[in-house]
Amino acid sequence: MKQKIVIIGGVAAGPKITAKLLRTKDFDCQIDLYTEENLISYSSCGLPYYIEGLIPDSNRLIVRRPEQFEEQGANIHLNKRCTKILPEEHKIIIQDTITGETQEVEYDKLAITTGARPIIPSIKGINLKNIFSIRTLQDGINIRQKMLESKKAVILGGGYIGIELLEAFHANNIFTTMIEREDHILSLLDPEISDLVKEEILAIAKDNVDIITSDAITAFEGTDKVEKVITKSGKVIETDMVIIAAGIRPNTEIAAEAGIELGVSNAIRVNNRMQTCTKDIYAAGDCTENFHLVSKNYAWIPLGSTANKEGRCAAINMAGQYDAFPGVLGSAVTRFRNLTISLTGLTETEAKKFGFDVICATMTKKDKAGYMPDAANITIKLVVDKRFKKILGAQAFGGGNADKRVNTVASAIQAEQTLDEFLHLDMTYAPPFSTAVDPLISAALIINNKIYKN
Amino acid sequence: MKQKIVIIGGVAAGPKITAKLLRTKDFDCQIDLYTEENLISYSSCGLPYYIEGLIPDSNRLIVRRPEQFEEQGANIHLNKRCTKILPEEHKIIIQDTITGETQEVEYDKLAITTGARPIIPSIKGINLKNIFSIRTLQDGINIRQKMLESKKAVILGGGYIGIELLEAFHANNIFTTMIEREDHILSLLDPEISDLVKEEILAIAKDNVDIITSDAITAFEGTDKVEKVITKSGKVIETDMVIIAAGIRPNTEIAAEAGIELGVSNAIRVNNRMQTCTKDIYAAGDCTENFHLVSKNYAWIPLGSTANKEGRCAAINMAGQYDAFPGVLGSAVTRFRNLTISLTGLTETEAKKFGFDVICATMTKKDKAGYMPDAANITIKLVVDKRFKKILGAQAFGGGNADKRVNTVASAIQAEQTLDEFLHLDMTYAPPFSTAVDPLISAALIINNKIYKN
Repeated sequence: MKQKIVIIGGVAAGPKITAKLLRTKDFDCQIDLYTEENLISYSSCGLPYYIEGLIPDSNRLIVRRPEQFEEQGANIHLNKRCTKILPEEHKIIIQDTITGETQEVEYDKLAITTGARPIIPSIKGINLKNIFSIRTLQDGINIRQKMLESKKAVILGGGYIGIELLEAFHANNIFTTMIEREDHILSLLDPEISDLVKEEILAIAKDNVDIITSDAITAFEGTDKVEKVITKSGKVIETDMVIIAAGIRPNTEIAAEAGIELGVSNAIRVNNRMQTCTKDIYAAGDCTENFHLVSKNYAWIPLGSTANKEGRCAAINMAGQYDAFPGVLGSAVTRFRNLTISLTGLTETEAKKFGFDVICATMTKKDKAGYMPDAANITIKLVVDKRFKKILGAQAFGGGNADKRVNTVASAIQAEQTLDEFLHLDMTYAPPFSTAVDPLISAALIINNKIYKN
Repeated sequence: MKQKIVIIGGVAAGPKITAKLLRTKDFDCQIDLYTEENLISYSSCGLPYYIEGLIPDSNRLIVRRPEQFEEQGANIHLNKRCTKILPEEHKIIIQDTITGETQEVEYDKLAITTGARPIIPSIKGINLKNIFSIRTLQDGINIRQKMLESKKAVILGGGYIGIELLEAFHANNIFTTMIEREDHILSLLDPEISDLVKEEILAIAKDNVDIITSDAITAFEGTDKVEKVITKSGKVIETDMVIIAAGIRPNTEIAAEAGIELGVSNAIRVNNRMQTCTKDIYAAGDCTENFHLVSKNYAWIPLGSTANKEGRCAAINMAGQYDAFPGVLGSAVTRFRNLTISLTGLTETEAKKFGFDVICATMTKKDKAGYMPDAANITIKLVVDKRFKKILGAQAFGGGNADKRVNTVASAIQAEQTLDEFLHLDMTYAPPFSTAVDPLISAALIINNKIYKN
């Protein structure tokens, strides 16, 4: 008998589950995916680069169209919002976002892949025109359209998305002020690394970028459209548009109402098979919490790469086979123009918070042989557990594929390599690619020399 | 009492030992380094890029000058060749390469870092003018000088150095014919990967590059200067110059004569503390053999990055402290223009030779989100042990920092990660840097699906 698989949410994890189930042999199922949007399977991570103008057509961000899934036998229901989950009855309630009509849908197995949404702070004047948040493809189109007729912009929030939008606006020669409530932008980094990154950004873009930290927006002013931003410290910033990039929160209200257990940051608690605490209900992607492989605690680290892995894992288990997703390291990367900023594992701040006795080294070195014409600086901070000499984390910025070097550390962290093992790692070397002693090894050697004083 | 440390050889491992010993606290020693060359501590790996014209001044390839070591208290003896090692007497014989005078030098501990030299095949006409081999800085200067007045060149050998010289000549618009005796260039790669790489090179450079395989040079012809190259198959190739890049061999004759045990390819046998089988004699760098961490066999894989690690290890142990160098993975990288070619661990061919039951996947994918304007293809071949699911090796070429991705696999191989562990690796993702499912993970998933048929 065909199993009825129902999926709610259509950006990343939902389509991944669908695709994987369609490829799974020996599992007879009917797949129905419901989304409140009018398209599915698009790269929301690509929106800043569409806004920047690097991608001429927003449709290129669409990974797969509903028709492609339909042809393979899945049913894709657009403009249908799930309003209620009834776990006991194995049913959900779906509402058509256009007609308002509701219907009941039965499931044998349900996957919640509802993702996350921007946090919209309740600031006076927030409903003025030309104040945008960014989540859907349409948001990206609206922002780009407005940007092209703007001279000044304000970005609220100095996280990854804020930085990526800053690049987009800078590249389009819009004078842009970033306002971050905390002392530091990119607060996932250690504070001194964040300071160095901020310096680098301003060095690249000082002509048309201003970064204000430790200040908050208290009001948006204007008649009809936003014209001014007022901050707590008393600054008045004239602007043509505002982007709210003040963080995201998981879309888990309907899960919570149905009694499905939530965890960190109200993300859905799942085990390593992507099962929620409620029978026959799975969850994957940005709406779920993650097990952190270094801290051994749960965290909420919503990322597209993780959504894909979790989607695959959920599909395999929903099909009655076995797969386990071990957890995450929090590996991430962003950029501002040529400046790559990347991290994996725990920062020094986090490691201390979790009680590790840490030893760190931060080192700046050329990313390739110094005599090569395109040699650039890369700065690497390694965080090591002093007692067991395990590598806990790495942060890197600059040239030299900072992200790929961070991946090499990620692999070592996941394998619980010690510092001594890591500093003997046989990495590729040729003058256009690295130094004879790779920057990663240099950073490891500094810590080693600190520990053994040799 | 000061220990007398004597080092013979001055390119990479020798200077590294010197530098590390100078930094070692609580070890009182006199350091004497002898080299037959007139300089020390230069990047021979950089020579192709000097020849290409990317490095305006050959002096930039010099890492450290003798004076820098002398100021720190080491004695650097240029133009002094070691002609004999007398292990019983703890002495070596040194000959001045200019005056011919000899002297005896006593040591408490000796380090042999004599490196390797090009193999010069005994071909008729090999002594004609404008036939070069490449090892020293002066060789590089001579080749560049001749190249600038040439229109046609022949490179004998299709290994790394051959490919790097091919780039140099191609970039200078010299019509260049590469002649490789084996069926494949870059014979360290699996044959089908080598074929793909050759295709890519010819696609980039078809106007002025010809690659001939399975053919050998039988004679060089010309009056005084080389004018023609004759091959076994009967080809007659007109040329203004020839570079011999037909491999290298370790400089270990004096070690062998002194009864020091040699291993694979006549490289010096050392343990993981860089001790030879002869008391108080250490060796490091290109003249030593290496323990291969995957095959668990000895191999000779001479590389600058390994020379640095071995030099450090030798210095620590010579100073009476403890360090162990576990071995190598054979990680390497080269390039032809924008085409990066990299590998680590065992190829399929090698793995089978060592008796592994292997399963492989080769996959080509965009190196970053397909909608990014600079997305390029990267091809990855992963080699996995079928029984224990251990990753044995990776080959990669194309864009997308093929070398850095190979390093991530290197880290996993060194840590003896299984395929299942590796395919859950939390790698950084953002559209300008990767795909949501990184190409490495995709390659791993293909093998996983082959094994588990899901």
